[in-house]
Amino acid sequence: MNFQGQHILSTAQFDSEGMLSLFEEAKKMEKIMIDGGSDILDGKILATLFFEPSTRTRFSFESAMNRLGGRVISNADMMATSSLKKKESLEDTAKTVSQMVDVIVMRHPESGSVDKMAQNSDVPVINAGDGPNQHPTQALLDVYTVWKERGGLDGVTIGMVGDLRNGRVPHSQCDLLKHFNVKFVLVSPDELAMPSDIVSELKHFNCEVVESNDLVKSLPEMDVIGMTRVQMERFESEEEYKKYEGVYVLDPELMKKAKEDAIILHPLPRVDEIAVELDSDPRSKYFEQVGNGVAIRMALLKKVLE
Amino acid sequence: MNFQGQHILSTAQFDSEGMLSLFEEAKKMEKIMIDGGSDILDGKILATLFFEPSTRTRFSFESAMNRLGGRVISNADMMATSSLKKKESLEDTAKTVSQMVDVIVMRHPESGSVDKMAQNSDVPVINAGDGPNQHPTQALLDVYTVWKERGGLDGVTIGMVGDLRNGRVPHSQCDLLKHFNVKFVLVSPDELAMPSDIVSELKHFNCEVVESNDLVKSLPEMDVIGMTRVQMERFESEEEYKKYEGVYVLDPELMKKAKEDAIILHPLPRVDEIAVELDSDPRSKYFEQVGNGVAIRMALLKKVLE
Amino acid sequence: MNFQGQHILSTAQFDSEGMLSLFEEAKKMEKIMIDGGSDILDGKILATLFFEPSTRTRFSFESAMNRLGGRVISNADMMATSSLKKKESLEDTAKTVSQMVDVIVMRHPESGSVDKMAQNSDVPVINAGDGPNQHPTQALLDVYTVWKERGGLDGVTIGMVGDLRNGRVPHSQCDLLKHFNVKFVLVSPDELAMPSDIVSELKHFNCEVVESNDLVKSLPEMDVIGMTRVQMERFESEEEYKKYEGVYVLDPELMKKAKEDAIILHPLPRVDEIAVELDSDPRSKYFEQVGNGVAIRMALLKKVLE
Repeated sequence: MNFQGQHILSTAQFDSEGMLSLFEEAKKMEKIMIDGGSDILDGKILATLFFEPSTRTRFSFESAMNRLGGRVISNADMMATSSLKKKESLEDTAKTVSQMVDVIVMRHPESGSVDKMAQNSDVPVINAGDGPNQHPTQALLDVYTVWKERGGLDGVTIGMVGDLRNGRVPHSQCDLLKHFNVKFVLVSPDELAMPSDIVSELKHFNCEVVESNDLVKSLPEMDVIGMTRVQMERFESEEEYKKYEGVYVLDPELMKKAKEDAIILHPLPRVDEIAVELDSDPRSKYFEQVGNGVAIRMALLKKVLE
Repeated sequence: MNFQGQHILSTAQFDSEGMLSLFEEAKKMEKIMIDGGSDILDGKILATLFFEPSTRTRFSFESAMNRLGGRVISNADMMATSSLKKKESLEDTAKTVSQMVDVIVMRHPESGSVDKMAQNSDVPVINAGDGPNQHPTQALLDVYTVWKERGGLDGVTIGMVGDLRNGRVPHSQCDLLKHFNVKFVLVSPDELAMPSDIVSELKHFNCEVVESNDLVKSLPEMDVIGMTRVQMERFESEEEYKKYEGVYVLDPELMKKAKEDAIILHPLPRVDEIAVELDSDPRSKYFEQVGNGVAIRMALLKKVLE
Repeated sequence: MNFQGQHILSTAQFDSEGMLSLFEEAKKMEKIMIDGGSDILDGKILATLFFEPSTRTRFSFESAMNRLGGRVISNADMMATSSLKKKESLEDTAKTVSQMVDVIVMRHPESGSVDKMAQNSDVPVINAGDGPNQHPTQALLDVYTVWKERGGLDGVTIGMVGDLRNGRVPHSQCDLLKHFNVKFVLVSPDELAMPSDIVSELKHFNCEVVESNDLVKSLPEMDVIGMTRVQMERFESEEEYKKYEGVYVLDPELMKKAKEDAIILHPLPRVDEIAVELDSDPRSKYFEQVGNGVAIRMALLKKVLE
C-alpha cells in the first residue's frame, strides 16, 4: 500500500500490510515527540477545514503537523465563516483551497462530502469525519493502541460494548480489525446489535464472532474492552431503555471481573459509560489513545506528503 | 515605488514600475513555492484581523506568510469574538495589535476602516477588503495573472463582463491597468455600465475603450475575459433583468467564439456566470488565479517587511 | 521560586524574588523581539483554550510563543465550537488536550475553572483570566511596566483610580506590589472603595496606604496613575453615580497637576476614562503595556517550559 499523494478517505483503503507499516512509523513518531519534534515537513502547509467543529480532532491533526515542522492554516467553523454562505460549491472550495496548501484535513456533517472534496482537489485530502460515514484516523488510532499495548493483533479478543448498530466507531474498527486474526465479543442490547452484514463480513474474513447482551458474563474474556455511548433516544420505548440503563457502565467493581492485562478504550468524549474512578486504573487507555492519535496522524501526514 | 514599511491600502498607490517590480518578485515566489518554502520572513509575525469572514483571502495571506517562514496569529471573525463588543475603537485596536506583531492584514465591511487602522498602527497594514471600497491585492493578482499568462501587458485587449457599475473588482482592475497600453472592451447592460468617470480616466491615460451590451459580438476580440456576477437585485424591474438573464454566462458553446489563446478570469466565488464544464478548458485561469494570489501576497509581504 | 513545569494560576504564587527574576528575563525578551525572534522554544506547542473570547490576551500569548520559535494551536471560542456541547467535563478536556501539547493557556468566565483544568492536566496550565478571580499575567505586566519605567519598585507611590471594590485588576496589582516597599494612594467613591481585607493585607506587609475620593488632590503625589473603569451599574442609584460621573476622567488639563515623570497605566480596553488627547503625552504608557505583556509572557513561557 502506497500512501504518497493519496487521499485518505475510508478504512476500506487499508489492508494489514498498510496498517502495520503505518504503526511502525507511528512508533518512530512517538520517539520524535519525546525528542522535541522534527523538521521532516518543513515548508509544507496543512489546511484544516472543519464544517462541523471538533476541537479534539482538529488539535490532533494540527499538533501532528506542527510536531513535524509543518505549518497549519485553519478554519475551525466553516459553516459560520466561509463563503459557503455565498453558495460556493464544495467542488469550487476544493479547487480553490488546494491551490494554497499541500494537504487538506476536512470534517463535514454529510456522508460523501469529503469524497467530493477529494475528487476536486489537487492535493491530498484526509477525512476527519464525514457525518455517520467514515473517520478513518480515529479507527486507525484505536487499532494502533491495541497493537502497541498488546504487542500485536493476532490472537487478541476484542470486546465492543454499547450501541453497535449506530456507532461509526465500532463499524470502522471492524473494518480494520477483520484483516487480523482476532476474536470479536460484541455486547449490546438486541435493539442495538451490530448490523448483520458487518458480522457476516467478519466471519468471511475468518474472525470468530460472539454476540451477547450480558457485559458481566462477557467481560472476563476480553483483552480489549471497547466502550461506546448508549443513547436513550435510540430505543423504541423508555421501558426498553430502562432495561439497559447503567448496564453498560464500567466501574471499579465491574472491572474486578476483567483480565489483569485487559485495556479499556473509548473514543471520547465520554458521558457516563466509564466511571471517573477508573481513570487511575492502569488498564484505562482512553486518554493515552489521544496521544496515540497524534502519533498516527504524524505517521500518516509524513507518508502522504513525503 | 518603495514598499518597505508602507501600508498597502489602495490600488491608487501603484504605478507601472511598482507593479512590474512586484510581478518579477512574485515570479521568484512561485519558484520558492515549488522548492518548498523559504525562511526570508523567519521571526516575523502577521496578524490577520477579519471583521468580515473570508476564508479564501485569509488563507491566501496566511499561506503566503507561512511559505516565507513567517508566523501568523489570526482572528477570523473579529465581530463575533473581539473586545469591540466592549466598544473599543478601531484606533485603539490598531494601537494595541501593532505592539504585538510586525504586519497586519485587515478586512472590514466599512469603507475607510482600514485607512483608520493604518493611521494608528505602528506597523504596516495591508487592506484585504474594506467593503465596497478597495481590495488592492485582489486587483494585483488579476493583473499579475494577465502579465504572466500573456507575457506582458502592453497591447493586450482586456474584456470586462457583467456588473461594471457596482463591482469593486472591475473598478480596481481599471485603476491598475490604465498604467499600461491596454484596450478595454466593457460589456454590460446599460443599467450596469462602467461609471463614466472611470471611463474618462482610462481615456485620459490614453487607453482605448469600447463599450457594448453584446457579449457574443465582443467576445472574439478579447485576449482576457474578465467575468463578474450580475445580480438581479441591481435592476430596476424584473422585466429589465430578464433581458440579461443568462446572457453573460460563459459556456463551452460561447467559448468557441473566443480566441484560442484568450484567458478567462473570475474573482470567485462564482455562482453560475461560468459553466462548470469550462473548468477543464485550458483557457480557464480562475483557479490558477488563486495560486497567483499567494505569490503576489508573498512578494508584497517580502517587500513591505524587508 | 522555581517556574519549571509549574502551573501559573494566581498572583499568590509570586514573591519579590520570583517577580524580579521574571522581570530580568522579560528585559532580555525585549531584546530578542528587536533582534527578530529566537528558537528557544523550537519544537514546543502551546494550546490556547479561550472559553470566553479575548483577542488582546490571546494574541499576546500567541505572539510570545511564536517570538520564541514555538508553535500555537488555538481555539478562540471554546463555548461555540467545542465538544463541551456534548457535555464533556473540564477534567476530561484537561486530560485530553494535555496529551497533544506542551503547555495550555486558558481563559474561562468562571472562578476556579482554570485550577480545575490544571489539576487534571499533564502539562503546565497558565491562567489567562478565570472570570472575576485571577489573571496573573495582566498584573505581572502592570508591575513590570512600573519596574521598567521607574527603574525599580521600592519607594514608588502607586495611585489606583476608579472602581477599586470590584476590579480584578487593582486587587491583583496589590497582591504583587505588597512585596515591595511602595506607597498606595487609593482613589475611589466610598461605595467603590478597596475592600478592607486587602487594605489590611497591604498594611500587614508594611506598605503605607492613603484612601481618598478626590483625584484632583491626590494626583500630584502619584508616580504611577493606575486607571480603571467606573461603571454606572455598580452604584445604588443614578443620583449617586452622577456625583462621580466624569470625576475620574484623565485629560490634558488634569494631567497638568501630575508629576512630570509620572506614568499612566490602564488595562484596556478603555471607554472614556482617559481622553484620547493624552495618547501623545509621553507619560501615557498604556499602549506600551501591551508590548510589555508580550515580553512578560515570553519570559514566563520560557521559564515554565525550559
